[in-house]
Amino acid sequence: MKIALAQINPVVNDFDGNKLLITQLIQSATENGANLVVFPELSVCGYPPHDLLDRPDFIEKCLSTVREIALSCSEIFAIVGAPAPNNASAGKLLFNSAYLLGNGEVISLHHKALLPTYDIFDEYRYFEPNTEFKIAEICGKRIAITVCEDLWDDQPLSSAVRRSKLYKVSPMAELAKHKPELIINLASSPFSSDNYQRRLEVFKGTTHRFGLPVVYVNQVGANTDLIFDGGSMVLNGKGNVVLQLKRFEEDFKIVDTDSIKSLPSIIHSTQNDRIALIHKALVLGIADYFRKMGFKKATLGLSGGIDSAVVLCLAQEALGSENLRVLLLPSQYSSDHSITDAVKLAENINVKYDIVSIENAFSEFNKSLSTLFTGLPQNIAEENIQARVRAVMLMALSNKFGHLLLNTSNKSEAAVGYGTLYGDMCGALSVLGDVYKTDVYALAQYINREKEIIPLNSITKPPSAELRPDQKDSDSLPEYDILDKILYKYIEEGKGEETIVAEGFDLATVRRTIKLVNINEYKRFQCPPILRVSSKAFGFGRKMPLVAKF
Amino acid sequence: MKIALAQINPVVNDFDGNKLLITQLIQSATENGANLVVFPELSVCGYPPHDLLDRPDFIEKCLSTVREIALSCSEIFAIVGAPAPNNASAGKLLFNSAYLLGNGEVISLHHKALLPTYDIFDEYRYFEPNTEFKIAEICGKRIAITVCEDLWDDQPLSSAVRRSKLYKVSPMAELAKHKPELIINLASSPFSSDNYQRRLEVFKGTTHRFGLPVVYVNQVGANTDLIFDGGSMVLNGKGNVVLQLKRFEEDFKIVDTDSIKSLPSIIHSTQNDRIALIHKALVLGIADYFRKMGFKKATLGLSGGIDSAVVLCLAQEALGSENLRVLLLPSQYSSDHSITDAVKLAENINVKYDIVSIENAFSEFNKSLSTLFTGLPQNIAEENIQARVRAVMLMALSNKFGHLLLNTSNKSEAAVGYGTLYGDMCGALSVLGDVYKTDVYALAQYINREKEIIPLNSITKPPSAELRPDQKDSDSLPEYDILDKILYKYIEEGKGEETIVAEGFDLATVRRTIKLVNINEYKRFQCPPILRVSSKAFGFGRKMPLVAKF
Repeated sequence: MKIALAQINPVVNDFDGNKLLITQLIQSATENGANLVVFPELSVCGYPPHDLLDRPDFIEKCLSTVREIALSCSEIFAIVGAPAPNNASAGKLLFNSAYLLGNGEVISLHHKALLPTYDIFDEYRYFEPNTEFKIAEICGKRIAITVCEDLWDDQPLSSAVRRSKLYKVSPMAELAKHKPELIINLASSPFSSDNYQRRLEVFKGTTHRFGLPVVYVNQVGANTDLIFDGGSMVLNGKGNVVLQLKRFEEDFKIVDTDSIKSLPSIIHSTQNDRIALIHKALVLGIADYFRKMGFKKATLGLSGGIDSAVVLCLAQEALGSENLRVLLLPSQYSSDHSITDAVKLAENINVKYDIVSIENAFSEFNKSLSTLFTGLPQNIAEENIQARVRAVMLMALSNKFGHLLLNTSNKSEAAVGYGTLYGDMCGALSVLGDVYKTDVYALAQYINREKEIIPLNSITKPPSAELRPDQKDSDSLPEYDILDKILYKYIEEGKGEETIVAEGFDLATVRRTIKLVNINEYKRFQCPPILRVSSKAFGFGRKMPLVAKF
Repeated sequence: MKIALAQINPVVNDFDGNKLLITQLIQSATENGANLVVFPELSVCGYPPHDLLDRPDFIEKCLSTVREIALSCSEIFAIVGAPAPNNASAGKLLFNSAYLLGNGEVISLHHKALLPTYDIFDEYRYFEPNTEFKIAEICGKRIAITVCEDLWDDQPLSSAVRRSKLYKVSPMAELAKHKPELIINLASSPFSSDNYQRRLEVFKGTTHRFGLPVVYVNQVGANTDLIFDGGSMVLNGKGNVVLQLKRFEEDFKIVDTDSIKSLPSIIHSTQNDRIALIHKALVLGIADYFRKMGFKKATLGLSGGIDSAVVLCLAQEALGSENLRVLLLPSQYSSDHSITDAVKLAENINVKYDIVSIENAFSEFNKSLSTLFTGLPQNIAEENIQARVRAVMLMALSNKFGHLLLNTSNKSEAAVGYGTLYGDMCGALSVLGDVYKTDVYALAQYINREKEIIPLNSITKPPSAELRPDQKDSDSLPEYDILDKILYKYIEEGKGEETIVAEGFDLATVRRTIKLVNINEYKRFQCPPILRVSSKAFGFGRKMPLVAKF
């Protein structure tokens, strides 16, 4: 039996577009002699549809689109993902389902049993968990059709924050009772820099437990904050990967199930370089945000510092130099190298730039507010005015010419609130909001791996917001190599003050860092969507109270 | 048996503060001869704790605080709400539990079975549903201890978007097998203008089904976006309310269970005036946001229009005139009445104001950007600069003097994106972001119910953003009485274009309105937390995709 893996990049709510994508690949698969073609989880409507699932008109569109897609399955079977109505008298209104299509119609439905409801996932918000397990028979082969988390009943991650047995049910153990010969898994599993390894462990674990090959088809492409990395694959019954689809790109491959046993194992090597993966993910994240929103052009404030330099290089890869136009926005506190480093970068990658001084606008605000502020020393208020004047300039360019503003804040800054709300925290999309400063440096080195694109001076000079004379980040914050370690332990690992201090960090620094993270939730609440590349990003995946005693 | 209802206003993560609140009322209850005192759901840590529940240090603090509270229960029983570890080998790590305390220790735990995971609720993110049902015996009385949603297995709301049977289990039906004599329900049930009636229906339904009295203790107070209205009560076995605690205030009352049968029913009347309730809720929402965050003072931009006028009056009730300082920020496009109406209101309620023209700063931006914008007509870019210059002025005042900026956008504007991101959409808290424009008018009338506080001209003049000559809201938007009806049907009722048109609205208007709501998700993503007063507010309760085909 020949199975096609259709790793597609659907757009949420784009039923016509997704249908076209799916039916074209059904035709390709048919022409290439496949007996079955498998698409990702919720591929008909795109993942994640969020509260569109609460809309009856959206569900109706899902169902009619599935029926229309089924019409192209006359000589082939297909499995697509879509919500399905729960016809029982109680429970959530929907299932998250795999639809087996063939003979021009829907043959059977296979509902998801394990509904991830943690971090960025909220599936129990919409779906009823499946409790009835059945096998599909396709071309005489008994197949266990599962949806994403259904294979994750035994998670490779176990910590104080998370246990490996999140669920009481093992869907594959139930399905195994019906003696399947093959497992198919439809997924929309988002990228994080450590998730690929975990996925492999899960699939290896599954093949070992049940001695069955797995055909895994994942969504690819970015939807707002979430980046899906594809990487669909086939594993033989011994847990070896024998077919591997591209990561971060659409892909389509066919496997003959009879040959799975005899195919050689694929060894991964370079694919697992963390920084290279993050780089790819961010480029895809930017590209898809613009393409799917119908925009082409971006802008940002190029400061001469490392964050805006890295964002510009990523945007240049995603959108092309011709679609970028940046502003250099110096003030009286800007050092000479701010301009020269920024100009050098813009010229290195051939991006149009303008230099607009913020001094006059800044001084006009000071004048307008002088009667209110008489006799008071300059402080954070004046620092923030500068950052906000820059935002007004950038948004004016954005509104005038249609360039979306890219936010350049990194995760370390976002964590401790080292940024100005409505100033440098503005933007349609935060590119580095899930990348710690130390990783921003690593990204810069990676971008420069073949030649100096980002001026070395941007990488080597001490980071500064340049909002007052001789300001340095290290005046207000611990050095980033210390700060980032504490932040990682607090945010990603969920460790508390006591534990972190016991691991060898200074109490005062740890306490102050944790306090800063907690009291700056209000700033992050209003920040743009952040491209997620870690296991715990700011945004939907980390929902903290604003009003609380900290 | 005498039961005290302790309707408290805890602060999330304030273990010392909450413990003090709880132990003081345990002492009061003891002194007043009560046998049992009941506190709201998750009262030990405050509700909602959100992802603090994922932190082991937070859970440890919950457990140690419960043990400390138990020490004050030597002559009385108490029921408090707190998370409890799930010691089973699989499932979520926690239960959402009621702890029965007595004899200085924890006597028993009663876990929540129905975990609301819809709208603003996400309890399955953290908690395992209870499956073992048991009765508590207190002073020889058999009591069914339930937590909030446990009584909501049969919801009074049934629509295309929501069914009445959200769950497959009925906790009370299970508990009824053990022949209880009384139902106790610990709740943290947030206010919405239509929720009180629904609660009554649920409790009446429960008493009718089981013929048992209900003692209901709800949290009061606001936590960021959510406003808890208290309104704890006792119902007799026939579904009549016989004891009613205050709404929107802390309260404490004792009921003798022997007298429940003979107490007269309480008839509600004025309490159900929707606008008066929303008014109370918003005042509490503002007051608690400031108090719990440790702030006292607020600012806003007073435009002479109705939205900022209503917000100022609400803030004045919540914080007092002495804690308010507003800016009037006229431009060349401001009409005379903008200033006179604003001044009149500020003087009516004795609020300090300054008039700061934005003309010079606006013109400085135009100059600075002139080489970039040469030859291009003024458009939305220049309109937005004005709104953003105002925001910079207000945030400067906020940063200089510590006044939090209140956002004055209403729900109609927020819905259709009629507002400037980083301009009038700024603020620490959105006061009217869940109040449609037509209800803003009703609130203004209500505020003026005894005398003219808000100048009549602010209420009667046609709404305008005054960002270009002779601009009116109605140039860009349908009249608000039409717009708000369409928005309500689309947002609150989940109806689609076809259905709304079938109900008698113009197709082009409906289509355009829906499109505006969908494509402006990106703006709302970055707006401040919104005080929730409706059944479907923007914010955590309405999670829509930004990147999607609309």
